[in-house]
Amino acid sequence: MGIHQYFQSLSDLENIYRCPGKFKYQEHSVAEHSFKVTSIAQFFGHVEEQAGNKVDWRALYERALNHDYSELFIGDIKTPVKYATAELRAMLSEVEESMTQNFIEREIPAQFQEIYRHLLKEGKDETLEGRILAIADKVDLLYESFGEIQKGNPEPVFVEIYSEALATIYQYRDMASVKYFLAEILPDMLREKSIRTTDLPKLTTDIRENAIKKTN
Amino acid sequence: MGIHQYFQSLSDLENIYRCPGKFKYQEHSVAEHSFKVTSIAQFFGHVEEQAGNKVDWRALYERALNHDYSELFIGDIKTPVKYATAELRAMLSEVEESMTQNFIEREIPAQFQEIYRHLLKEGKDETLEGRILAIADKVDLLYESFGEIQKGNPEPVFVEIYSEALATIYQYRDMASVKYFLAEILPDMLREKSIRTTDLPKLTTDIRENAIKKTN
Amino acid sequence: MGIHQYFQSLSDLENIYRCPGKFKYQEHSVAEHSFKVTSIAQFFGHVEEQAGNKVDWRALYERALNHDYSELFIGDIKTPVKYATAELRAMLSEVEESMTQNFIEREIPAQFQEIYRHLLKEGKDETLEGRILAIADKVDLLYESFGEIQKGNPEPVFVEIYSEALATIYQYRDMASVKYFLAEILPDMLREKSIRTTDLPKLTTDIRENAIKKTN
Amino acid sequence: MGIHQYFQSLSDLENIYRCPGKFKYQEHSVAEHSFKVTSIAQFFGHVEEQAGNKVDWRALYERALNHDYSELFIGDIKTPVKYATAELRAMLSEVEESMTQNFIEREIPAQFQEIYRHLLKEGKDETLEGRILAIADKVDLLYESFGEIQKGNPEPVFVEIYSEALATIYQYRDMASVKYFLAEILPDMLREKSIRTTDLPKLTTDIRENAIKKTN
Amino acid sequence: MGIHQYFQSLSDLENIYRCPGKFKYQEHSVAEHSFKVTSIAQFFGHVEEQAGNKVDWRALYERALNHDYSELFIGDIKTPVKYATAELRAMLSEVEESMTQNFIEREIPAQFQEIYRHLLKEGKDETLEGRILAIADKVDLLYESFGEIQKGNPEPVFVEIYSEALATIYQYRDMASVKYFLAEILPDMLREKSIRTTDLPKLTTDIRENAIKKTN
Amino acid sequence: MGIHQYFQSLSDLENIYRCPGKFKYQEHSVAEHSFKVTSIAQFFGHVEEQAGNKVDWRALYERALNHDYSELFIGDIKTPVKYATAELRAMLSEVEESMTQNFIEREIPAQFQEIYRHLLKEGKDETLEGRILAIADKVDLLYESFGEIQKGNPEPVFVEIYSEALATIYQYRDMASVKYFLAEILPDMLREKSIRTTDLPKLTTDIRENAIKKTN
Repeated sequence: MGIHQYFQSLSDLENIYRCPGKFKYQEHSVAEHSFKVTSIAQFFGHVEEQAGNKVDWRALYERALNHDYSELFIGDIKTPVKYATAELRAMLSEVEESMTQNFIEREIPAQFQEIYRHLLKEGKDETLEGRILAIADKVDLLYESFGEIQKGNPEPVFVEIYSEALATIYQYRDMASVKYFLAEILPDMLREKSIRTTDLPKLTTDIRENAIKKTN
Repeated sequence: MGIHQYFQSLSDLENIYRCPGKFKYQEHSVAEHSFKVTSIAQFFGHVEEQAGNKVDWRALYERALNHDYSELFIGDIKTPVKYATAELRAMLSEVEESMTQNFIEREIPAQFQEIYRHLLKEGKDETLEGRILAIADKVDLLYESFGEIQKGNPEPVFVEIYSEALATIYQYRDMASVKYFLAEILPDMLREKSIRTTDLPKLTTDIRENAIKKTN
Repeated sequence: MGIHQYFQSLSDLENIYRCPGKFKYQEHSVAEHSFKVTSIAQFFGHVEEQAGNKVDWRALYERALNHDYSELFIGDIKTPVKYATAELRAMLSEVEESMTQNFIEREIPAQFQEIYRHLLKEGKDETLEGRILAIADKVDLLYESFGEIQKGNPEPVFVEIYSEALATIYQYRDMASVKYFLAEILPDMLREKSIRTTDLPKLTTDIRENAIKKTN
Repeated sequence: MGIHQYFQSLSDLENIYRCPGKFKYQEHSVAEHSFKVTSIAQFFGHVEEQAGNKVDWRALYERALNHDYSELFIGDIKTPVKYATAELRAMLSEVEESMTQNFIEREIPAQFQEIYRHLLKEGKDETLEGRILAIADKVDLLYESFGEIQKGNPEPVFVEIYSEALATIYQYRDMASVKYFLAEILPDMLREKSIRTTDLPKLTTDIRENAIKKTN
Repeated sequence: MGIHQYFQSLSDLENIYRCPGKFKYQEHSVAEHSFKVTSIAQFFGHVEEQAGNKVDWRALYERALNHDYSELFIGDIKTPVKYATAELRAMLSEVEESMTQNFIEREIPAQFQEIYRHLLKEGKDETLEGRILAIADKVDLLYESFGEIQKGNPEPVFVEIYSEALATIYQYRDMASVKYFLAEILPDMLREKSIRTTDLPKLTTDIRENAIKKTN
Repeated sequence: MGIHQYFQSLSDLENIYRCPGKFKYQEHSVAEHSFKVTSIAQFFGHVEEQAGNKVDWRALYERALNHDYSELFIGDIKTPVKYATAELRAMLSEVEESMTQNFIEREIPAQFQEIYRHLLKEGKDETLEGRILAIADKVDLLYESFGEIQKGNPEPVFVEIYSEALATIYQYRDMASVKYFLAEILPDMLREKSIRTTDLPKLTTDIRENAIKKTN
């Protein structure tokens, strides 16, 4: 028991790869994903601040940095959504939550347990920081699937992930950071030479129109 | 939908690695594990046959070959047993079972669904073939953990896995194949030069004595 | 000497990669190939059975599971066929056979030598099970080369392998399982989005016509 | 030019490995290191806060997260310190700084340049947050070298790195977080079974005594 | 100190990968690059000899084999030339040179120091052997970038590397070996099936015309 | 046909790994081995020259650089010598030789065929350069097996390789370069901290005594 165990567990997150069971040209560990999501959330925080919104920076960094720590317990298993019902996913989420609580009680010294209960709790909620985390997580997922599509990965799952991630981002399109993403970043992404001849530009337009239609 | 999907899914089992989230010197994919378990079960079948027992070879190969196919759906997540209660494990097992049924209905053509329901069902039961599978699965797990310990892997989880696997094998020690394993194979394993100075010989003796005590 | 050596040798088959010396996006070990060939043979066995043919299941599993074990001795070296004459290939085959016999005599205990002489002998012959193994082996090779072509591998060797594998499959086109493969599985394979714009559909047609012509 | 380039560059940090040119059992990318350093700094921040010190959390996260971003430009080349004089190291540092400034001017849109000049500047200084970053960076380096020593890496460079990292940590031993590290975490580390028979416990004592002597 | 250190350092060159920090389908170590450059230089030497030029073979092999040994000290960091000014590159070159001299003095026994000062000095100069090394180094770089482009790598840096390498080769187009390369080898390269539909044939023509224009 | 094929084949040597089918901590490609053998031969050439012997440098570099090119055709399959008789090894050697001749005729342009027949012929003979190649090849093999033993590889094959390589080196112990190796390099190797407690120092003494005995 002790912080030594916690420090070593950070290294175990380097051994868990995202989207297991599918061929990928480039692997991403959960540790790497966490770094990128935090960096993306940091950028979006600045966009929100320039748009006049108040950002609780400590909360933003805390949520982003720790949001996938509990993948340590059951790994990254959300991928084959095709075969998972909402009920199944709820069960898996409950399992993960229980294991995280077990871990804190067994490994974290008493004086820090309250802190880690706070740090490792679900960070996506209706606060500005919770919403920034939600979109930063999806933007990194979008980049991961984009990277595979761009390199020529024929697995249809990456087009599904791209679509699902982008559709979720559109749900937050009233946020200043999402507006910036849609206006400035996404077009640059789709202008990449290897993408112009794929279905991605058309698919992106469809997703946008679909998102707009749903809310009218 | 179709067998093309099934054939491609066999290749996805090459992308799922056993015991994820722990540093290992040598990775083993679920496809490789399945090959080795079937080869080990084949050997144990011959030992049982030489001991005068009747082996249903078709059933033995079927069970061994397909026993981990459903890891395709939630991956190999049974490792961190330390933090999982029996209830949690039961839930995960139920999730896996549901996903397998979903898969068969969606991907396997109607004329083969009954066959794959049979092939992909849990193969470990009280029949001779079910018991041979149970020990072949544990013997390969024992070899996997042994291989890491022998190469100097400091993660205590591999000693835990070795102990748990061996204790389970001892529960089947009335079987001819387990007798052969304990008398002929395990001693050779422990005689490996790199092992003689570790705790493994002593630990092995403790596990045996413990197993015997329990049943007296 | 002993079964411990044999069990450890199974793990060495995880360290031998197919088609060495060529760049590949995805590696396949001989252990993984053996798992897939056995799973494919299992499916084809069911097709034959549904077509009214009697399958000796034990023989089928035995042949498929063990068919490449002897690659342990000289590795997977059949690839650069371009520079190998029939005579050279016969010599290599003879070397492999001799090494397998040496292995059995030195490592397998006397009471099991006869069994392993049977299990490790060449499994491809004119029996139904021998023919199913021959096509299952080629189907997995076809999938391996298809996977590389689909991912964009520019090495012409993979088109050569695809062609050679498919031409061999066509030679068995009177079998129920090959009929199912050609009618149901191959078309799904060629309908994969990344394939429709390659030469593969045309090439496949040419190979079929060539195969039919030869026998008329 | 644009944030799309910046987001993609985060992924390049997954392709830069620490301590290049030396055999390692486990590789760590700069992205992974950044994640771990930020998580370690987060823990140390809480120790400082419990000790009654005021932590500027935003500054702490900012410094830790971004502290190695500029390795994008010349990679992780600080390792072979044995052959590098102070002057050479100063030159390399200057090169890195210039390249970072070039990058901001060319790739970051004008409205965010000031922010990224702030985020990517050297974060180690005499503030509490600067000192926490300095020790968190060394603690992760200590864990990296410890991991190699524990796995049996014979390269003497890892003992050198361990020593240098620990000696630096001792220089900050008046800090509450370092006190906690030395009293609670380091002893757990040295109690790891694979370490007790190495030179590390003795070496650690020597480094401590040397550190104390220097300041008296 | 001693040749044992030097022999072991050769193995460290297997752990330094070229063009770090960019996604690649195929990695090339500095050891592998050195082998290929020497083999390419050997071929070009024969072309020069057939053209009637006198080749100092010992000098040619010496220069090619050892030309990147000093990457041992600061790694392969020349890639992000985009952000490096001429002054910065000169500084890095100076750092490398100093470290090499330090290495020779500390590790190479006195009786061989003069020899290694000669072997490890910069090999590209105006002699025939120096010029052959310069083009062999660029030809291997051209093949490395060509390999990535051919496999579908979307990173624009590989087109930049291809262009820069080819433009440099054109500067030496009065040499018999470059003439052979441009007339016989480059056209075969561009005739590769996966290349004919890319920008490479047009780009290659542009680079040639540009090269010719510059010198008129 | 053409030199483009030959240049690309150099890259295939990066995809052939030495000693396939055995677990290794560190892989070495045939390209990397060729680089190291040439560098080692270069050093030994200088020792011979300092000892007053005349070295044909061109011949030495030619032989060392190209000595394993023909592994392109059947791979590195000499390892499992345990199961191979002298006759089998002679057959494999003959196969390799035939394939090399086939390659030269098909791929190398006529004007260079004579040169490549010379370059790719067996380089180990009774000339000084042939003997230097023989020992340089064994010294690199010794270092490869030493590296695995030093890292804790439990496979007995690496002790066998070490022993066989060293015994061969002793056969050449009248050469100045071998004398230097035995007096200056080997002792440094055995003084490595991780080696002092293994059987290697004792084994090395036995091999030496055995070698001396044989010739008396």
